[in-house]
Amino acid sequence: MKCRVCRGPAVIDVRRQNANYCVEHFLRMCRDQVAKAIAQFDMLQPDDRVLVAVSGGKDSLAVWDILRDLGYEADGFCIGLGIGDYSDASTSHARAFAESRGWPLEVVDLRGEHGFDVPTAAHVTRRVPCSACGLSKRHLFDDAARRGGYDVVATGHNLDDEAAVLLGNVLRWDEEYLGRQLPVLPARNGFPRKVKPLVRLGEREMAAWCVLRGIDYQVEECPMAAGNKHLGYKEALNSIEEVSPGSKHAFYFGFLDRAASRFAAGTAQEADALATCERCGSPTTGDVCAFCRLVERSAGVEPVALTRKRGRR
Amino acid sequence: MKCRVCRGPAVIDVRRQNANYCVEHFLRMCRDQVAKAIAQFDMLQPDDRVLVAVSGGKDSLAVWDILRDLGYEADGFCIGLGIGDYSDASTSHARAFAESRGWPLEVVDLRGEHGFDVPTAAHVTRRVPCSACGLSKRHLFDDAARRGGYDVVATGHNLDDEAAVLLGNVLRWDEEYLGRQLPVLPARNGFPRKVKPLVRLGEREMAAWCVLRGIDYQVEECPMAAGNKHLGYKEALNSIEEVSPGSKHAFYFGFLDRAASRFAAGTAQEADALATCERCGSPTTGDVCAFCRLVERSAGVEPVALTRKRGRR
Repeated sequence: MKCRVCRGPAVIDVRRQNANYCVEHFLRMCRDQVAKAIAQFDMLQPDDRVLVAVSGGKDSLAVWDILRDLGYEADGFCIGLGIGDYSDASTSHARAFAESRGWPLEVVDLRGEHGFDVPTAAHVTRRVPCSACGLSKRHLFDDAARRGGYDVVATGHNLDDEAAVLLGNVLRWDEEYLGRQLPVLPARNGFPRKVKPLVRLGEREMAAWCVLRGIDYQVEECPMAAGNKHLGYKEALNSIEEVSPGSKHAFYFGFLDRAASRFAAGTAQEADALATCERCGSPTTGDVCAFCRLVERSAGVEPVALTRKRGRR
Repeated sequence: MKCRVCRGPAVIDVRRQNANYCVEHFLRMCRDQVAKAIAQFDMLQPDDRVLVAVSGGKDSLAVWDILRDLGYEADGFCIGLGIGDYSDASTSHARAFAESRGWPLEVVDLRGEHGFDVPTAAHVTRRVPCSACGLSKRHLFDDAARRGGYDVVATGHNLDDEAAVLLGNVLRWDEEYLGRQLPVLPARNGFPRKVKPLVRLGEREMAAWCVLRGIDYQVEECPMAAGNKHLGYKEALNSIEEVSPGSKHAFYFGFLDRAASRFAAGTAQEADALATCERCGSPTTGDVCAFCRLVERSAGVEPVALTRKRGRR
């Protein structure tokens, strides 16, 4: 197995590219793919201040590492979600990485600062935990970017993630979600720009990036996500990719090229003026934003034990 | 397990409907679903003459049986594809069923009448066998409908088939195929109308229909299709349906409701005038139609042994 670039001994194969790489040229390929995604979708300007949403997993640590490598001013923001040992270990990985590099990382603890955690919110809302978790993360990332004067929030969503989300949206033909499933969402109405610089790279490459760069990341998957639909979509796509390497890339980029704009029309109107949350000042469609309503509903509720919740029918 | 309708003992569960049925009410449900599909998509008029594309498998025998049950004038047309014992057995099942009912069935043997068979055509064209097979079937069905003065060709494609085809089209975002993946294609340019009356029923229900009606069908799958991408798409959807019953129905009918028209625009122009094949008189875009070119390329080629061909990357 020889490196595509230098013909030296390769350490990894990337089947959808039908290519093998040595360490040096694998790392260069990853950086190049991130730079290409940034240019292709006009994600970042050279002097943008970037806030990286850091979980402590491979993707978020890798995207932070690569953005810094490419010369961007990128700081980290991490949320203690209160999902038992899993969250404690995740936060520790994020802190250890930031300290080793000497890069700024803000950590917000959901229970310490907002009085609830994800298992409790799932219990209170009687919905799958991923719902309250996603809501909280979006709110706190947006809020941190506004407070810190950042131009843009970068997340570690990779090609596998985006293809699986797209499959879910397509299986339901959810027009609104399809209309805005893009690798960059422009700033609007007080929300910062959101970018996904890893969309041209798979999760296996991100794990390899961390291993080859000596980055110790949280390997465990979230215990509350076990059995959720998103993981089922990933498995379905993995079985297709196994037979036809490149299927995920063709699915996601074919969507962006030939289909996304067909769904975008219906979502344009909602960009109109929003109100301001009377509790926290965030932009919102009502009087109180969804996060502050969640804080209110969870206030004083005893922390519940960690449970695995199956996706609903 | 009780029948949803009469509360008597049920013999089958239909998970996506969250319902169980006794024999009588299962058969009624199947007929009702076909009648509903016919009305919903304006597939058939009461006095249409229908030509059913019959393979000898469960779906084609069931759709013929149900259309006759619903009072339509429906005759059968079957092609001997020359895929070894599989084709011989399939044709025998079709003949036996037609004879038992006393319904007209025309059988055309591909090698006997056109000088080639599917394995040979796959060898000559160097493509997957399903490609030459589909081309031949479409041509001969259209031709038989014109010769026999039929208004419409009905095929046994069920919900599982259509959802798997849709998944393949979506994974590639094939705009042209997406624009015409409809349960009814109107007659145009000398091609008869095509309808798929089983789109509201799954393949498991069609097997049950045949068993409960005492119809002996070809149970084997085509040996040349083994390992093809379509079966991979079926498996991927089956894994999703297993966790979330109703996913396939929502995927296919959601597409028809909310997405198909977004892809239709690009395909409207091609409905313009076609030429006439100088060999067979069929409508075609060139001088000689694709089927007659296949006949020509295969002429005099020694029959090749049956091989299992994997889908290409």
